[in-house]
Amino acid sequence: MNEFELIARLTRTLPTNNSVVVGAGDDCAVLDVGAGDRWLLFKTDAVVEGVHFTRETPPEAIGRKALARCLSDIAAMAGTPTAAVITIGLPKEFNLEFVEKIYAGLNTLAKAQGVAIVGGETTINPDRVLLSVAAIGFVQRERVLLRSGAKVGDAIFVTGELGGSILGRHLNFEPRLAEARWLAENFSIHSMIDVSDGLAGDLRHILTSSAVGAELLRAAIPISPAAREISRRGDAAKPALVAALTDGEDFELLFTVASRTAVPILDAWKNKFPSLKLSCIGKIIAGEGIKLRDESGVRPLSAHGYIHFS
Amino acid sequence: MNEFELIARLTRTLPTNNSVVVGAGDDCAVLDVGAGDRWLLFKTDAVVEGVHFTRETPPEAIGRKALARCLSDIAAMAGTPTAAVITIGLPKEFNLEFVEKIYAGLNTLAKAQGVAIVGGETTINPDRVLLSVAAIGFVQRERVLLRSGAKVGDAIFVTGELGGSILGRHLNFEPRLAEARWLAENFSIHSMIDVSDGLAGDLRHILTSSAVGAELLRAAIPISPAAREISRRGDAAKPALVAALTDGEDFELLFTVASRTAVPILDAWKNKFPSLKLSCIGKIIAGEGIKLRDESGVRPLSAHGYIHFS
Repeated sequence: MNEFELIARLTRTLPTNNSVVVGAGDDCAVLDVGAGDRWLLFKTDAVVEGVHFTRETPPEAIGRKALARCLSDIAAMAGTPTAAVITIGLPKEFNLEFVEKIYAGLNTLAKAQGVAIVGGETTINPDRVLLSVAAIGFVQRERVLLRSGAKVGDAIFVTGELGGSILGRHLNFEPRLAEARWLAENFSIHSMIDVSDGLAGDLRHILTSSAVGAELLRAAIPISPAAREISRRGDAAKPALVAALTDGEDFELLFTVASRTAVPILDAWKNKFPSLKLSCIGKIIAGEGIKLRDESGVRPLSAHGYIHFS
Repeated sequence: MNEFELIARLTRTLPTNNSVVVGAGDDCAVLDVGAGDRWLLFKTDAVVEGVHFTRETPPEAIGRKALARCLSDIAAMAGTPTAAVITIGLPKEFNLEFVEKIYAGLNTLAKAQGVAIVGGETTINPDRVLLSVAAIGFVQRERVLLRSGAKVGDAIFVTGELGGSILGRHLNFEPRLAEARWLAENFSIHSMIDVSDGLAGDLRHILTSSAVGAELLRAAIPISPAAREISRRGDAAKPALVAALTDGEDFELLFTVASRTAVPILDAWKNKFPSLKLSCIGKIIAGEGIKLRDESGVRPLSAHGYIHFS
């Protein structure tokens, strides 16, 4: 049983109440807490030494990453983050300077995004450093973006370039908060998610939630220089396209809009965010799963992002 | 440097914004999120294997405890919990049934208290199980109870009986949500905290926040049967009074009210909560620190709860 199967099993029986608009299963939970025309977003995320960072990772980058992951989920709902609380698990003989630097990195990002850090918990985690961040934010009701709104015929877009984030981007990515809010304010976005598990995996979350399929145009997928660099590291290296489809921690925005909106979005985007790439990578189709189109035809993409050759 | 010194150092420089009414340093953060006459409460707390529970602890009790600790903090502000998100760190070869039982215990308490579980994160924590819970709740603005409102002359109250929770209560305590709300609705409570670090430690949090001192009446401190049982385990056992003053995880309410309110509260309490003890254990005085009065006089209490003999 993998992480997603476990989550699916656990979320089937979660307690709910009448404040819940969207429970577990989207980028954030959505709650109606009587805050006028705004909904509350609620999210938790964790990073663990040896999994999401190493003993060699600068502590400022660890703190920054832990918060940035949560903020990326709030971005994916077109929300604005308000406040966060932090749990740090530390080996008993922790180094004070190390912890202060974790907070320094976290605080710098929080200040830049107007997020208040309003509580924390330090606890012993004897064997390794762990940070768990929970964040709340708000979004105008009519602008909240879910995974479940993709429609057959939609154009699929992704920001930035994908793959190879392990070379550095997984520590210094920018949560796409301003970009997502701008999209929600100016266009009718049908569905959105942040790319944390890899393009193929996160697109599948949209497809499953929306009960549709997707056809991606191979040549349109934006491959990062880092993914290309890794692909040149020998015969056993992951091909750059596969890296772009399956590497995690890109933290870009993946969204769908009606096809007639595709050109207006691309035009307006270039003016608004000239330094950040926006790519139309395919379309939503009837059915399920992801197909990849190239010059030789259309083939299904396996769960691991590799291409089935028939 | 202990946990409190670390927290004090870290909280000095936390980013804030104009939604923050009370930041880190009380039982919960208090935020004005435009929800009418209600303030939002936000809290995170964690339990770790080997620290807060053992490999022998029933998993249902682990899940219950992780959530109950957070709810106890919301109780201490006289709030009503709305929703929680859960991070579980698991060894790689986790046992599915174990995780489901953790959630079963957590869900049962959540349902009983009307709390929605709206998200979770499972992550690898290679060496031990860790649960981090973040919860939000709401409280009427005029009823929020802080640590900082104690006034000289106040009577000091505590619910329940203290000490020896390691014999079982630390796993099955009831967060005093209904009791705290009833107190806030019916009386002018000056300050409140939940007893998580031990009576002496948590009373000191009230005293420091309120810039006052306290005199406790030795004979009035409600000592639990568990604390008495442990004290009979030999000459090296912790005396029952010291246990009541310093053992952690009682999760009772500790609060102060004007002395003229003491008798009305005791009378009304007996009618409303006949099965839960409420004890007036002393008074707030000018100065700082805790003094203990018994038949032989008044002596200061050390930071560790032991009595200084002069």
